[in-house]
Amino acid sequence: MAILELPSSARPVEEVSLKYGVIVYPGFQALDVFGPLDALNSLSLVYPMQLSIIAETLDPISTQPPGSLSNPRADFYQSIVPNHTFETGPPLDVSIVPGGIGNRIASNVETAIDYVRKVYPTLRYLITVCTGSRLVAEAGILDGRRATTNKRAWATTIAYRPEVEWVPHARWVVDGNIWSSSGVSAGIDVIFAFMAMEYGEEVAAMIANFLEYERHLDSKWDPFSQLYNL
Amino acid sequence: MAILELPSSARPVEEVSLKYGVIVYPGFQALDVFGPLDALNSLSLVYPMQLSIIAETLDPISTQPPGSLSNPRADFYQSIVPNHTFETGPPLDVSIVPGGIGNRIASNVETAIDYVRKVYPTLRYLITVCTGSRLVAEAGILDGRRATTNKRAWATTIAYRPEVEWVPHARWVVDGNIWSSSGVSAGIDVIFAFMAMEYGEEVAAMIANFLEYERHLDSKWDPFSQLYNL
Repeated sequence: MAILELPSSARPVEEVSLKYGVIVYPGFQALDVFGPLDALNSLSLVYPMQLSIIAETLDPISTQPPGSLSNPRADFYQSIVPNHTFETGPPLDVSIVPGGIGNRIASNVETAIDYVRKVYPTLRYLITVCTGSRLVAEAGILDGRRATTNKRAWATTIAYRPEVEWVPHARWVVDGNIWSSSGVSAGIDVIFAFMAMEYGEEVAAMIANFLEYERHLDSKWDPFSQLYNL
Repeated sequence: MAILELPSSARPVEEVSLKYGVIVYPGFQALDVFGPLDALNSLSLVYPMQLSIIAETLDPISTQPPGSLSNPRADFYQSIVPNHTFETGPPLDVSIVPGGIGNRIASNVETAIDYVRKVYPTLRYLITVCTGSRLVAEAGILDGRRATTNKRAWATTIAYRPEVEWVPHARWVVDGNIWSSSGVSAGIDVIFAFMAMEYGEEVAAMIANFLEYERHLDSKWDPFSQLYNL
C-alpha cells in the first residue's frame, strides 16, 4: 500500500510543476531550505518530482557562514550535498531561494545572484524564504514588484534594493509568479500556500497533516512585523 | 555587533547542555532533523555549542529510504554529511533521534538502535522526534515510561514495543530525561520546550522570534490525535 495517495481533487500530473531547484550557499539558514523541502519531499511520494540542489561547486555546503559572522566558540553546523552547479543546473519549473547569515557577505552570493538572474525567465515560479528575497532583489527581478522578507533583518535587507515595493506586514506575498515569504519558518507556510494553489487544497492539507503541521493560512498573519516595530 | 545576545535571565554556560549529537540513517525525515537543529543552530550564536552528526559510516546520508518505500518515479532527496560514526561518536549531553520512513526497515536502523542503547546512560537528555521514538523504544530504554510518537503511524509504531506507556494525545511528552514528540513538525515545538527548560524561557522566546516561529506551548495541544482517531 502506498504511504500517501492523491485525492481525486488533485491537479493532474501533466499540469503541475515537477522540476524543483533549491539554491544553496555557505551560511544558508537550514530551516529556510528544509522546511519547504520536507513538505515537497512528502509531496514527491505522490507526484513524480525531481529536485536539483544547486551551488557554486559540488562540494558540500555548510550552514556555517564565512568569516566572522559565526560564533567562534561554537562548532554547530550541517552540510548539504549539491548535485548541480550554477553552470550545470537543469531546466526547472520552480526555484527556491533561501536566506541566511551567509548572504550578508556579497562575495559569498555573487554567483548565486547571477544564476537567479539567468534562470528566472525560464521558470514557472520563484519562491523566496527569509532574506533569500535579497538575492532575487539584487538580481533586479523584483523592481517595482511587491515582496516581503525577514522582519528582524528588515532594514538592512530592504536597503539592498529600494526599487522593490517591500511589504512590511505579511507572512508571504505573491506578485506575479514570485512568492516571497517572511523569516525562516514562514517558508513552511508559503510552500503550503503554493502547494494549495498548484496541486489543490486537499493535497496541501494532506501533506500538512502528514507533517502534523498547523498551517498559517492567512498571508497577512504576521505578529513579527509588530514585534520588530515595522 | 553580535547577531543575538543572551538575555540576563539566561542560564550560565557552565550549567547548560552544550554537546549535541543527532543520529541519521537513510530515509530520515528532513524536518525531524532540521527543525530542531535550526533552532539549535541559532542558539549556538550565543552558547559555545558543538554538534555531532552521527551515522553508521561517514558517507553522506540521504533522505531517500532504501528499497521500495520511495516513489520510484520521483527523484527528490537531500543528503547530510555525518562527522562521526556510531563507533567514534564523542561524549554528548543531548542526543536527538529523528524518525522517517527509513526506519520501517529493521536492518536499516539496527546499528542506530545499538548506539542509542549504548549512549543513553551517558546522556543528560534524549529527545525523539516522530517515529524516532521507535528506535529508542526498541533499545529498551522506554519500557514502563511515558512517550509519544507520530500519530499517523501510531499503530505500527507502538506495536514495536508494547512495554512502553504510549501517550496518544500529546504534542510532546517528558518522562525523566527523555523528551518524545509527535510527528515531524512537533520536533520544533519540543526543542523550544526543552530550550525553555534548559536555557531559560527568555532564551527560547528570543530564538523562536529569530526564526519567526509561533510555538505551541501546550504539550497537550494535538489536533492530529483526533484527526487520526486515536
